[in-house]
Formats: sequence, structure tokens, C-alpha cells
Amino acid sequence: MSDSTYLQLRSLVTAAGELQLSLKQAPIPEPAADEVLIRIEAAPINPSDLALLLGPADLSTARVGGTAENPTLTATVPPKGMSAIGGRADQSMVVGNEGAGVVVKAGANAQALLGKTVAALGGGMFSQYRVMKAAACLPLPAGTSPAEGASCFVNPLTALSMVENMRRENHTGLVHTAAASNLGQMLNKICLKDGVPLVNIVRSAEQASTLRNIGAKYVCDSTSANFITELTDAIAATGATLAFDAIGGGKLANQILICMEAAINRKATSYSRYGSAVHKQVYSYGVLDTRPIEIDRSNVGMAWSVSGWLLTYFLEKIGPQATQKLRERIVAELKTTFASHYTAEISLAEALRPETIQAYNRRATGEKYLINPNKA
Amino acid sequence: MSDSTYLQLRSLVTAAGELQLSLKQAPIPEPAADEVLIRIEAAPINPSDLALLLGPADLSTARVGGTAENPTLTATVPPKGMSAIGGRADQSMVVGNEGAGVVVKAGANAQALLGKTVAALGGGMFSQYRVMKAAACLPLPAGTSPAEGASCFVNPLTALSMVENMRRENHTGLVHTAAASNLGQMLNKICLKDGVPLVNIVRSAEQASTLRNIGAKYVCDSTSANFITELTDAIAATGATLAFDAIGGGKLANQILICMEAAINRKATSYSRYGSAVHKQVYSYGVLDTRPIEIDRSNVGMAWSVSGWLLTYFLEKIGPQATQKLRERIVAELKTTFASHYTAEISLAEALRPETIQAYNRRATGEKYLINPNKA
Repeated sequence: MSDSTYLQLRSLVTAAGELQLSLKQAPIPEPAADEVLIRIEAAPINPSDLALLLGPADLSTARVGGTAENPTLTATVPPKGMSAIGGRADQSMVVGNEGAGVVVKAGANAQALLGKTVAALGGGMFSQYRVMKAAACLPLPAGTSPAEGASCFVNPLTALSMVENMRRENHTGLVHTAAASNLGQMLNKICLKDGVPLVNIVRSAEQASTLRNIGAKYVCDSTSANFITELTDAIAATGATLAFDAIGGGKLANQILICMEAAINRKATSYSRYGSAVHKQVYSYGVLDTRPIEIDRSNVGMAWSVSGWLLTYFLEKIGPQATQKLRERIVAELKTTFASHYTAEISLAEALRPETIQAYNRRATGEKYLINPNKA
Repeated sequence: MSDSTYLQLRSLVTAAGELQLSLKQAPIPEPAADEVLIRIEAAPINPSDLALLLGPADLSTARVGGTAENPTLTATVPPKGMSAIGGRADQSMVVGNEGAGVVVKAGANAQALLGKTVAALGGGMFSQYRVMKAAACLPLPAGTSPAEGASCFVNPLTALSMVENMRRENHTGLVHTAAASNLGQMLNKICLKDGVPLVNIVRSAEQASTLRNIGAKYVCDSTSANFITELTDAIAATGATLAFDAIGGGKLANQILICMEAAINRKATSYSRYGSAVHKQVYSYGVLDTRPIEIDRSNVGMAWSVSGWLLTYFLEKIGPQATQKLRERIVAELKTTFASHYTAEISLAEALRPETIQAYNRRATGEKYLINPNKA
């Protein structure tokens, strides 16, 4: 790479059924008057990035190519996977929803940001440089490193939006699954601070103690023999009628609805064959389990809903002013409520190594990888 | 039965696991000042009545008892069924959501209704007499028989509410399943009259021609080898993004979402890994298929929702004024848009015969039974 070019991670799924990851070399762009050029120094690999980065490829078929400095990786996409890739076939995609870095060049109207550390959301962050509209950049307070600000948007905005969504739809408590994740720990901190009762569903005793250690009051381990009773008790204690589910496949969403209905009916004084009239909502925002969601309606009444949930759609619904308020809170609490922890910092080239991919693609709860595209 | 007593159908599920149907004899009640006494002459057996009437009993175990004039029927409720009956154990329930008849006595403030034929909604209509608040009665136009007015509420209000719900949630077309039902035919008449594009999903060629004969334009037969393509085409032609699903079990709700998403993406100009941002909603209002609903999210994007839907909850949401408007339209179009057709008229005693139960419990599309509690 010369001084006037930079590397950018690209993901391509060919119509013939092959995933191709590569580092594309391109000239460093010039920012326009209202734009800045950011040298990206930190970009987290979020679950939503993995979906675009790896697609439905069968990684057991991964083959390394290229050079050590500019490696490539190819893998086969099975026919079933091809049916799910929609319009992306043969389109080389940039990857990386969010990141942070230093503004190294600024257009005439964006000089105030020159030299500042900023965070940004907008795709293509797994890249050494990125041009952004100045207005889309979030300047970080002095003393904040790019690594500290890299996860400023996706997780903090998602966690805050869950609580905001709860208030706007008149629920008074929350259930969260895969609750020991980075996002889940953030949600606990917000709920503790705001006095929102939160039921955490985790999948091991270890995760349960992680959450109890940061002050979580209601933690239910889905591997417990008494999970359904324990979840019903926790929901009855909190009055939660809204769940955000990162897992989404199998019976968990249904179990949550069943426990909500049972908790509500503990207080019922008369029988209705339609169940309780209290609306119970599960928002499915993740696909940690890719199996179909199964909803048996026998014990959930008629007032229920299972829906997809995407941060972008929610922010569009609440509008730019309400979104700005959420962003301001994130900056104010970046090193406390919204602090992220990373398992490892890797370079762009390392991000293409099969063993590293295997590590960050485990999507293990609490684990998170940070790409530093300018890692020495 | 003497002149001062009457018969009322009762359904009881004992805690020990037995369904008991009987005709209870009770003194004819006196209406209060704002009430009327209706001699019920027609009450339809709707799917929603069957759920309460028969519960989860295993009807292959049905045993007849009592006398020819006052029969009883008992059947075993399997343990799995008992877990779903909730608070109704050992409670003798009245049955029959809606019906019509003649006002034979009226309280001081309800004299205007004396002698009138009225329809009413409120439970306990499988009964020779029923006291109702005068305000809750819907007086039928002169020349309307109780049989013509018996199904005034459940099906007509449901079909009208589907269209009203569509408008209020900013959809512009509808998908309906089990579409050749009485309700489905009504919905077709409303949509044809109001110019609302409607995609009808049926389960046989015979049902498809039933609907085409009443003017339905979009009819998709789920037993067709090309069902998915045909459904996608119909949804693309109508722009429907809202479905009311009477079936609810298995993959049909998912197929509808997949076809909606595919229809929307036919017009897409760029790829988004989150799918289209257009919200797709399936309301599950029936349980013709009691299996779990299966939602595979691979091809539906993130903007989707599958929810329970109950007429009562919808009417509460829109409020009494909007509900009254729907009722007025029903009365005005009772012999046209909202005409119901019945397979047979049966007495209360006949409603307890195993062979009759077998017939009306088939829930065959287009079949519907009418109880005349005062049938000679």
C-alpha cells in the first residue's frame, strides 16, 4: 500500500455460489466541502456485520489465497444459502456498520472536526479510511480513544432504543435473551440506572453470575430444570410484557409469551377462553438460532405479537430529534453505561484468516472482536 | 319444560377431565327496567363457539345420557387438553356468542323494543330465552327473520373490522385464508363493493370456483403445485401487505410473509441484507390448524409481524363510535353483503347428539349450523 492508497475489506458472493473475501486497494478519496476523511482505528465486528461479511457460506470449505499481506479467502455457498442472498449476488459489498477514528482531512465547511476523534455509523468501516458527511460524525469527548468510541452506535443505540420502545408502547418492564452479551450488559446498566425492571434470560450458570455481578436482579438460566417456573416468577415480579429476543429460533419466544400470559393470569379473577387481554410482544432482533420460530398458541391467549425488530426502522419511526437525544446520552455515558469490552484487536488481514474467522464467528456471548484497519 | 321455565345449553369441563354437555332448566327471568327478554329463535354455531362448547374433549369417547327430550353428552378430556383449559375447570359455562329472536317482555324503559325482532351479542345464546340490556340489542329492519339476523355480529363485524383494520394501519390490500368460508365470502362482497384488492387463499379447486362465482378476482389454491408463485403474483398485483389468517398452524403464515417480501422485492432497485423496509403483518384470528405457527425468517426481511387478533380487542381499540358505524352498515346490508347461509337448523337437543356434533364440528369451509332453541 502506498501513501495515496488504502485497503478496504470486501465481501462478494458470486452467482455461481462462492464467497470471496478480499482487501481491495483504492486511492484515498478527497472529502467534499461538507465531508471529512476519517482514518479508521477501531471497528467492532457486530453480529449484524457477520451476516453481510460471511453470508450463508459453508466455512468448513474455506480456502486461503493471495499473499500474507494481502490475503483472500474463498468458501462455498450451498444452494440453500444462495436462495437467501437476494440481490447481493455478484455485488462486491463493503462491510462494517460502525467505527471510530481520527479526522485527517476535512472539507471547507467541516474544518472544526480536523484532528478530532469521531465515531460514525454508515457501512464500510472495515477500511483504513472512510469519507463521511461531517454531520453524520459523532465527535467524542477529549480523552476518548477510537477503541472506546468504536461501538458508539449499534449496541448503545440498540439498548437505549429497547427502553425507549418499551416506554412508547406502554410496557413497564422488559425481558431480554442472550442477556449476558455486550448489548445485554449495557441494557442492564441502563435499566438499573433508569429503574426499569429487566428479566435477563441466559444460557449458563456462568453467564448468570456475570450479570448478577453487575447488579442484575432477575436472571433466568434457560438450562435450569425449573426454567419455565423461574421465568414466570420473574415476569410476575417485574410485570414485563415486552421482550427483545436475540435468539429467535425454536421455542424460546413462545416460552416467553407463555410465561407472560401465566404471570398475568395469576392475578386473573375470572376465566376467559381468549386468555388475558393484556398485549404481549416479542421483538426478534437477532438470529443466534437460525431455526424457524415456533409459536404454539395454546397458552398465550389472543393478545400477542411476534415481530422482527431493526434499529434503523425504530429510529426512523421516532424521528431525528428523538434519535439525537439518545446519541447525546451515549456520549455523556460512554465510559460508564456504554463501555464496551473486546476479546481481541485484529488487523484487516487477520480478519481474513480462517482461524480468526472461526473465533469471531462463534458469536459466543460476551465475546467481541475489534478490527483496527490501521493496526501496525 | 313448563311455561315458566326454559332450557339453556351448558358446557362443563370437570377438574377430573370430563366434558359434560347438558340442557339446564331454569325459571324464565324478568327483565329489569332497561332490559328486554328475548325468545331466541336463531343462533349460529361459530368456530369461536365450538372452542367453548366442546373444549379439548376427545369426541371419540362421547357417551349419550339423559332422555330424548333432555339429553346429556359426556366425553373424556385428555390430560394434554386439561392443561389448556385454564380457569374454566368445574365452571358450568353458557354458550353461544350471538343470536336473534323476538322481544317478548320489556322493562319500563325498554317498551319500544317489545315485539321487535332483535339481534344480540353477549354469550349464552344457545338458550330458549335471554335477558339483555336494551341498549345492547340491534333492532332488525321490518321483514327480517331471526335466522336472517342471527349472524349479525361475529362474521359481519369481523369481516368489516378486517377492512377497517387495514385502513387504520395504512395497508392498501388484503390476503385472507380459508377464504371460501361464510366469513370469507362476506369479506369478498365488502372488498368488491369498497374496491379493496383481496387475495383469497383456499384449499381446493372447488372452493376456488365458489369464490370466483361470487366475483373474486384473486384466488390462490394452496394445493396447487405453483402455489408460492401464484400467491406472489397475486400479492404483487394487489400490493397486499396485511393478511388475516384463520388457519394459523404450520407454515402458511410464513409463506404469506415470504410471498409479500418477494412481491415487494420485485420492484427493489438495490440490495439490503435486512430485506425490504415495508412492514408485513399477518393477523392470526383462527385455529383451524392447531399446530404451532412456524416462522422461518430467511426470506422475510426484518419488517414483519405475526400477531393474535380478536374482534373484541379491535373494537375496544377503535371505540364505541366507530363500532356503531360498522353496526349500522351491517343492518343496512343485512340481506345482501352480510347474508349468511346455513347447512341445517337444529334444536338444542339435536345439538347434543354425537352425529350432529360430528357434523358441525367438522368446521368444513362454507358449512355452518344454526341452532333454533325454540324449534318445535
